[in-house]
Amino acid sequence: MVAKNDLKLIRSLHQKKYRTRHGLFLAEGVKVVSELLEGGLEPYRIYSTEPDLLAGAEAVTGAELQKMSALVQPNRTLGVFHIPELHPPAWSGWVLALDGVRDPGNLGTLIRLCDWFGIRELVCSPDTVDCFNPKVLQATMGSLARVGVHYLPLEEVLPQSGLPLFGASMEGAPAASVTLPDKGVLVLGSESHGVSAPVRTLLDQVVCVPAFGQAESLNVATAGAILLYEIKRKA
Amino acid sequence: MVAKNDLKLIRSLHQKKYRTRHGLFLAEGVKVVSELLEGGLEPYRIYSTEPDLLAGAEAVTGAELQKMSALVQPNRTLGVFHIPELHPPAWSGWVLALDGVRDPGNLGTLIRLCDWFGIRELVCSPDTVDCFNPKVLQATMGSLARVGVHYLPLEEVLPQSGLPLFGASMEGAPAASVTLPDKGVLVLGSESHGVSAPVRTLLDQVVCVPAFGQAESLNVATAGAILLYEIKRKA
Repeated sequence: MVAKNDLKLIRSLHQKKYRTRHGLFLAEGVKVVSELLEGGLEPYRIYSTEPDLLAGAEAVTGAELQKMSALVQPNRTLGVFHIPELHPPAWSGWVLALDGVRDPGNLGTLIRLCDWFGIRELVCSPDTVDCFNPKVLQATMGSLARVGVHYLPLEEVLPQSGLPLFGASMEGAPAASVTLPDKGVLVLGSESHGVSAPVRTLLDQVVCVPAFGQAESLNVATAGAILLYEIKRKA
Repeated sequence: MVAKNDLKLIRSLHQKKYRTRHGLFLAEGVKVVSELLEGGLEPYRIYSTEPDLLAGAEAVTGAELQKMSALVQPNRTLGVFHIPELHPPAWSGWVLALDGVRDPGNLGTLIRLCDWFGIRELVCSPDTVDCFNPKVLQATMGSLARVGVHYLPLEEVLPQSGLPLFGASMEGAPAASVTLPDKGVLVLGSESHGVSAPVRTLLDQVVCVPAFGQAESLNVATAGAILLYEIKRKA
């Protein structure tokens, strides 16, 4: 039995405003919740219709879970976690920067890619979708425990990073033909407008994924996958 | 004013059974519809709330569009197209094969990637999601006009292709370390089970995207992006 106040609190976490106010976020599914716990994130509450699945889970009914969940089809287990406090970015090694990425699935995939490629810091412009959005969490598969996601004005922090700045754009040089250093920042722009004008002027080099066919563009997460691979392959 | 029978026909196309029966599929959004028309697909009907946007479009009201649409928020223009007739795969150049990919977004992204990398043939196992599913269409952005998608039993057709067969799996050799020929088949498996056992036994070589961090897996569309890039980079 979940107290009415808790239900109300948890439902409010579907919205960014209340996640910020309470310093809490939701994660759904036993796999994602387990990975966040293993990654050292501090749980506030864990609920499950099958509490034996996970140590520390409180039993809830399917109807209670439905009330808390941000999913159309809730996934047995739901965790409420404290939003981790982050140190400012250390700008060591390669860092990914996102300039206005709006789609939660794209951000989630990019966080998972950072984790795959061992990139520990992701710096997002303030207009990038919130990484604690439930749809982002679904796409990250728990990688959020291992990748620090910072929201900072790129045009202010990138020049202070001391790192060479690479941006992705169709007009750039093929990434395979570019000499890539062992650290730097890769900046990916928004789905519709690419890297914003103020950030573009800061870039040291612009790179692209060469096209061999006629597709008009690559999805930002797909382009990011290929460019991060290229960076790590050469490093 | 759309006739009642047409409304009923179009709504039925949300389901694969009726798409197959009528040989028709739906595409939504002026961009996707325009790209399919430019790609030479034969329209059955084009409807738009702003018929001036597109030659040949019939005017509909927002309420009519809502009734026909498979989207929660319909996108002004909706096209009904004839499902193109395909010749059997020619197995020339590189071919992508998908073994049980279930997520429409993943299939759509992979079709768009084929188009980007100039791969003209995609061969899917019969249990792969239907490429004329409205959610797939949304993710392809019109690339379906330029990539032939075949549904065939992989364990029968792959041995007849005459091409070397490469499969993707975490246990494979890093793709960058493998000598890749100028033609072949890249087989990607399902989101949950990878390449199926009968297809796995047919593979000449297994390749992977090396991990540098701790993420447990890469999304199939992301892994496909990197492997297709690696193939084209070397070709």
